Amino acid sequence: DTNFDLNEHPHTRQNILTGEWVLVSPHRTKRPWQGKVESLPADNRPEHDPACYLCAGNKRADGSKNPDYTTNFAFTNDYSALLPDTPVGEISIDGLLRAESQSGICRVIAFSPRHDLTLAELELTAINGIIQLWAEEFKALSENPSIKHIQIFENKGELMGCSNPHPHGQIWAQNSIPLEIHKETENQKKYFQVNGRSLLSDYLKVELKEQKRIVFENDSFVVLVPFWAVWPYETMIVSKRHVRSILEFTDKEQEDLADALKNITVRYDNLFQVSFPYSAGMHQMPVNDGNHAEWHWHMHFYPPLLRSATIKKFMVGYEMLGNPQRDITPEAAAETLRNLSEIHYKSINL
Amino acid sequence: DTNFDLNEHPHTRQNILTGEWVLVSPHRTKRPWQGKVESLPADNRPEHDPACYLCAGNKRADGSKNPDYTTNFAFTNDYSALLPDTPVGEISIDGLLRAESQSGICRVIAFSPRHDLTLAELELTAINGIIQLWAEEFKALSENPSIKHIQIFENKGELMGCSNPHPHGQIWAQNSIPLEIHKETENQKKYFQVNGRSLLSDYLKVELKEQKRIVFENDSFVVLVPFWAVWPYETMIVSKRHVRSILEFTDKEQEDLADALKNITVRYDNLFQVSFPYSAGMHQMPVNDGNHAEWHWHMHFYPPLLRSATIKKFMVGYEMLGNPQRDITPEAAAETLRNLSEIHYKSINL
Ligand SMILES: O=P(O)(O)O[C@H]1O[C@H](CO)[C@@H](O)[C@H](O)[C@H]1O
Ligand SMILES: O=P(O)(O)O[C@H]1O[C@H](CO)[C@@H](O)[C@H](O)[C@H]1O
Repeated sequence: DTNFDLNEHPHTRQNILTGEWVLVSPHRTKRPWQGKVESLPADNRPEHDPACYLCAGNKRADGSKNPDYTTNFAFTNDYSALLPDTPVGEISIDGLLRAESQSGICRVIAFSPRHDLTLAELELTAINGIIQLWAEEFKALSENPSIKHIQIFENKGELMGCSNPHPHGQIWAQNSIPLEIHKETENQKKYFQVNGRSLLSDYLKVELKEQKRIVFENDSFVVLVPFWAVWPYETMIVSKRHVRSILEFTDKEQEDLADALKNITVRYDNLFQVSFPYSAGMHQMPVNDGNHAEWHWHMHFYPPLLRSATIKKFMVGYEMLGNPQRDITPEAAAETLRNLSEIHYKSINL
Repeated sequence: DTNFDLNEHPHTRQNILTGEWVLVSPHRTKRPWQGKVESLPADNRPEHDPACYLCAGNKRADGSKNPDYTTNFAFTNDYSALLPDTPVGEISIDGLLRAESQSGICRVIAFSPRHDLTLAELELTAINGIIQLWAEEFKALSENPSIKHIQIFENKGELMGCSNPHPHGQIWAQNSIPLEIHKETENQKKYFQVNGRSLLSDYLKVELKEQKRIVFENDSFVVLVPFWAVWPYETMIVSKRHVRSILEFTDKEQEDLADALKNITVRYDNLFQVSFPYSAGMHQMPVNDGNHAEWHWHMHFYPPLLRSATIKKFMVGYEMLGNPQRDITPEAAAETLRNLSEIHYKSINL
């Protein structure tokens, strides 16, 4: 039907990585909001906080003392959700109650000794150093043969359950393949077997041709709002080259990733002139699990804000029970992000 | 391995309705919390609020006036995410950008003319009246041959994106089958074809035998914390009889459902002595889509609170990128809920 218009009519879009669909309701932005308005967390932190367990030289929960680090610092989470020494075992009661033990390692990465900064405000060399550290951690964890998947991520901001404003990320590595990775592996494999090219290589070609959802591009990476984005300002960083994990990046690609990370996080902060909350993380090939030639490295950003610094999108009733749903189109979100300054609002206000 | 203990060791559990697994970290409750503490919404509402678009006799966004209803009241959402007259159409660019138009109807159900009450505080006869209305709405919507699925749900509380504290629920009916229903249909069908009994009938037998996760039971319904619950105090109401939708309930079953609804919502409010936020909704057979003999009616409650009235569980980084994760065991949650009073705390404080 020629009347069907993605900018106007409710529709569903398929996420080609998971195979799942999202409901898009473009007309629904006109809805007035009388619901929850979030309070903004304080944004006047000191450069060093004596009470912060991530700041250099301070005490941690396990009694140990952080080194006087000057760039970044990784350690094993004092409250790990996964533990290395879990006894192996499984339970099945009539196939209806099924459980399997799970072991793993949880790491914390302090991004900077500066308590008052975030990724968006760090220098490119500092971001490059974090990427370097992520690669080292990925390598070391993958050398443990019981580890099958390594999730590198960051929860930024109170709204995203971050319990300490000191800039930091986490790594959860475990002995099985989590749900989202399982789905993305299936769909990438299916495509790769038929086409001999990675799913995201071909997807990038279409996106670069259409240009509608591109936010930023450099020699090695594209930052875009996926056609199937669920969160209002969700983005994805995709490597132009088909690489399976962070270990395959060249030095130039590492530098370009730092540039892309800085670019999107600065735009995010500029959107509502606030330190923009999100959960972000890389999706990479499983480890100790064969070749996985189908896997194409990418990084997802899932930010909750919808209308302003204090009004978020709620993924609740219909979304939890039925189907993810969004109110603004990915094209509109991309245009907004594309038109934002690449210079951080705080460095202008100085 | 005989050392593997569900109460102690990190493990995964399978959701037999969706086929997906949840990561359970029983030891993680010891983690201190320095993150977001929610503010409590005001709990001193008038019986009638002249500014509320759901109160009897008041004006709505579309200019119409609510009737002077005395029990409950249904109308079409003034800001529907789904619309009945969407042009049919689909798009596929190289199979990589895929979209389909979506049509449907969104309804709002005011549960009571009393602006100051919630389901937990309504009389059984009033709750029974709401169930009656849900059944009528379900029937009317299913008589529209283009409707394939009807999602009846409630978002309760600011924390769950509810934009008006007046007690109300919603219905989203649409021309396709949403993701969660699709998954539950697949798994129920597979089980029914092999065993000739519904998946949830057999699951209920195991749960009633074990008793560990049962919160409440009457002649027709069981309220339990599913073995695979994701949210800290997630529960499910399951009908003892294998019925596919609300339309098959006897009068006695309708009354027993009112009893079960009242029971669990009162316990929830008593847990932290606060009007307990949640998203809840029924899962029922798709409509205008064949017999669906495998389908077994149930209702999910997804409440976000974890530690107190102001500290919730965040489903963020690892959960969004990897796998759902929970900190307390379903057995511990069930025990807590089971030991709570069945009398609402507010009616005692009077
Ligand atoms: O329809 P409402 O109450 O305005 O909105 C609420 O419920 C909807 C359905 O779960 C969600 O899409 C919205 O994010 C939420 O705020
Ligand atoms: O590990 P943290 O920062 O204490 O906790 C945060 O991230 C975890 C991993 O995404 C989540 O499970 C927690 O709900 C969240 O609060």
